[in-house]
Amino acid sequence: MSTEHAQGAVEELRQRDKEIQVLSHVAATLSWDQETYMPEGAIDERSEQLSAIQTLAHQRLSDPAVGELLARAGAAFENPGGSALLPDADRAFLRQLYRQHTRSTRIPEDLVKRMSAATSRGQSVWSRARRENDFSAFEPHLSAIVDLNIEMAERLGYEENRYDALLDEYEPWMKTARVDEVFTGLREELVPIVSAIAASKQVDDSFLHRSYPPALQEDFGKVVLEKMGFDWMRGRLDVSAHPFTENLGRDDIRITTRYSPNFFNSGTFAIIHEAGHALYEQGFDEVHRGSLLASGTSLGIHESQSRFWENVIGRSLPFWSYFYPRLQETFPQALRDVTVEQFYRAVNRVEPSHIRVEADEVTYSLHIILRFRLETALLNQKISVADVPDAWRAESEALLGITPETDADGPLQDIHWSMGAMGYFPTYALGNLYAAQFARQLSRDVPDYTDEVAQGNLTPALQWLRTNIHRHGGAKSATELCTDVTGEALNPSYFIDYIRNKYSGIYDI
Amino acid sequence: MSTEHAQGAVEELRQRDKEIQVLSHVAATLSWDQETYMPEGAIDERSEQLSAIQTLAHQRLSDPAVGELLARAGAAFENPGGSALLPDADRAFLRQLYRQHTRSTRIPEDLVKRMSAATSRGQSVWSRARRENDFSAFEPHLSAIVDLNIEMAERLGYEENRYDALLDEYEPWMKTARVDEVFTGLREELVPIVSAIAASKQVDDSFLHRSYPPALQEDFGKVVLEKMGFDWMRGRLDVSAHPFTENLGRDDIRITTRYSPNFFNSGTFAIIHEAGHALYEQGFDEVHRGSLLASGTSLGIHESQSRFWENVIGRSLPFWSYFYPRLQETFPQALRDVTVEQFYRAVNRVEPSHIRVEADEVTYSLHIILRFRLETALLNQKISVADVPDAWRAESEALLGITPETDADGPLQDIHWSMGAMGYFPTYALGNLYAAQFARQLSRDVPDYTDEVAQGNLTPALQWLRTNIHRHGGAKSATELCTDVTGEALNPSYFIDYIRNKYSGIYDI
Repeated sequence: MSTEHAQGAVEELRQRDKEIQVLSHVAATLSWDQETYMPEGAIDERSEQLSAIQTLAHQRLSDPAVGELLARAGAAFENPGGSALLPDADRAFLRQLYRQHTRSTRIPEDLVKRMSAATSRGQSVWSRARRENDFSAFEPHLSAIVDLNIEMAERLGYEENRYDALLDEYEPWMKTARVDEVFTGLREELVPIVSAIAASKQVDDSFLHRSYPPALQEDFGKVVLEKMGFDWMRGRLDVSAHPFTENLGRDDIRITTRYSPNFFNSGTFAIIHEAGHALYEQGFDEVHRGSLLASGTSLGIHESQSRFWENVIGRSLPFWSYFYPRLQETFPQALRDVTVEQFYRAVNRVEPSHIRVEADEVTYSLHIILRFRLETALLNQKISVADVPDAWRAESEALLGITPETDADGPLQDIHWSMGAMGYFPTYALGNLYAAQFARQLSRDVPDYTDEVAQGNLTPALQWLRTNIHRHGGAKSATELCTDVTGEALNPSYFIDYIRNKYSGIYDI
Repeated sequence: MSTEHAQGAVEELRQRDKEIQVLSHVAATLSWDQETYMPEGAIDERSEQLSAIQTLAHQRLSDPAVGELLARAGAAFENPGGSALLPDADRAFLRQLYRQHTRSTRIPEDLVKRMSAATSRGQSVWSRARRENDFSAFEPHLSAIVDLNIEMAERLGYEENRYDALLDEYEPWMKTARVDEVFTGLREELVPIVSAIAASKQVDDSFLHRSYPPALQEDFGKVVLEKMGFDWMRGRLDVSAHPFTENLGRDDIRITTRYSPNFFNSGTFAIIHEAGHALYEQGFDEVHRGSLLASGTSLGIHESQSRFWENVIGRSLPFWSYFYPRLQETFPQALRDVTVEQFYRAVNRVEPSHIRVEADEVTYSLHIILRFRLETALLNQKISVADVPDAWRAESEALLGITPETDADGPLQDIHWSMGAMGYFPTYALGNLYAAQFARQLSRDVPDYTDEVAQGNLTPALQWLRTNIHRHGGAKSATELCTDVTGEALNPSYFIDYIRNKYSGIYDI
């Protein structure tokens, strides 16, 4: 097969991919609007519109002609190391397109429809079941969703573990066995740390629950965004029920937050978290414009960016040594009598709790390990859905040392399963681990970056991320990226070091 | 051809139409976002997205299979009076789809692209030419756009007047000869009224230029919208550079306005105007949901709804006798020393001026007659683009009694030509005429409706519009609708009567 022949196929595939990406940006616009400004009565029509656009995108991605063109482009992606026929950029493009095309062709339309129907019902039942703390109402729906996920995994195919097929959707090329290994090590280290913290003197965070008028929170959030390097010409900040980042185009990355008038953390830390995602999306190299490589390479890497900014930077003493005087000026009533050290300790308060989304950065990964263990057990039919509440309580006791009194505070707390998303949770914890590993490398490459943060100069940190991580988009896999940047694949010891160092200064551990 | 055979074709056409309408609502969402919240840097990508969706919709509409299905549905639409094969609703649907399909197939893709290129360049040059008052810079671009409109008209076909082919895009089935006849009569009546007003004592409106804080204007606008019956569950009010109404779906009708902090009229009257459009769109019968009949039947009828609310209701004494005390409470500084009669006269101040969008309801139609005369002359090659500035001045003098000193205040003032839209202007004046004719019928059918308005009860007026006009959507042509509601086709004498009655109370005429 000649280079020219393969190159022609690549060109046509790039053209087809561009159309798919345009449709996906259109769908993103519809979704963003739905969560921010859409009038309530429009929800049914909006679902139809979204589904129409997603169907068009899916048809284009699963088109047999794409398969034929991929075959013509040939060995380039099937054996990336062994072929020099095509440039690197093309190989990365073909590898990602091959993966997405193959996945899309393996799920028959009928299965997509059954999953869509089950999750549509499932979400509405879940929402009521959580409100009424009634796991038994949700149980048959969750069973159906687990069965459909098993069917999907069988269709998608896997080598070792059925869960691999689902995990790959969110964390491409990552394997269950590796996640299990990483999580096992993480657990062994984290559980004693959490116990030690629980045994030491708790920090006071009562002042975080004083009055913080939302309009002033927004003003302060915009100051932080400005300093972080968020590009307002190519992005927005709005309000929605749950914070999110949406990519409406290479030059249109929007974030949202929600403000609690009586709790400081929810608004500002969500802004910093989402801005971490947004800086990644605003930082893809221009060469990836309009292609599927203008995308985070995995949810784990994406989460590493949000967690890096939210926790490593945003919950650090240097950060607040610059921003805290400005925060005090903004909320003089609430913070007049609070020192920066008190504030720093308060926003880092650790306490085992039942609700994942409210968890601190030390216990957070334990919530994820719990879900990963249940999901893999369900998918591999080691437990049944009826066993979930008991299994949840047992895992919670073992991991966090506490047992939820209700299923609403247990297996009913998250929306993910009701949406059919299994294999997603691990990426949150992987994000924490990648963030710590990147941060360690950053402090080697730019030793004074925290001094700059303390001066309000976040640019050195951003520049390092831009150069080492953001610009690549989806061109490097998570493992390639991690290895290229830090010299080794994912290694959870950096996260443990980070936690130990940081929290030994806050707690007596 | 059997009824069953035809009915099968109708069903398939309805399905295809539904897909087209979903795409058109998606495009509307993209447009609305572009004008309201989109970050500036996203404009190029947004144009690509819009163009992609519009192309998909156009492909579906011009699909030869649609033509074949229309042929199978047969005589039903070609001779609506003569065939009883299909129900009325189907005949109306087929007639509209036939019209749109036929128009879309007659314009070759190459012509669409040339027009798109010419207007893209044209708009950017026009914008600079207006700023720099340089008609000669815009002249070659306008020439190209006129030539392309001529080419389009020739492709579309017409019986009598080339302009018919363009007018039909905005005012289906309306003919140039009829517009000419109506405008000639209108002009004969209006010009002496304007002269008489110009010769009588001018009303004072200086207080409308006091301080009106935008946030308070918005609060007041929302009170008015609430009373008008605007459905907030199925709509929104936002801010944009130019006010507009956008239909994002049967249950998603959004309006915008802009607020001037030092001029009362721009904000509130734009809200009432756009809400008139929106009430029409919110009022289509449920039976038309998702079909091309869930649409205003013509721009003239659409404009009749906005003008009815803005002028007939919103600039009436009964309206302000209810709302003015509330307005005074909102803006005590600006309006403390102003009576409701003074306010009423001020918002109805008449004065010939150069700029159409700032014109009062008496002189407004004369601005339109001017443009209609120039457009028809250009399209029929009676004058050339080089003649436009002189012709404009001559027409302005004859119609309004004033001559613009600059082309920026003359032929460069409107964006329409630069966008390629010729045939659009007449619909604005037709809207004024239809509004007055409908209002006369309303006051016959519901004699006390203005008394109710004076009590803040706008429901009787809305109910009459819902029943007689809104619910039909595009199922009746403008002429059918007008005839069914008022017993006769468009008759400009009602507008003249309305103007004479109203302004004899304000001016000495």
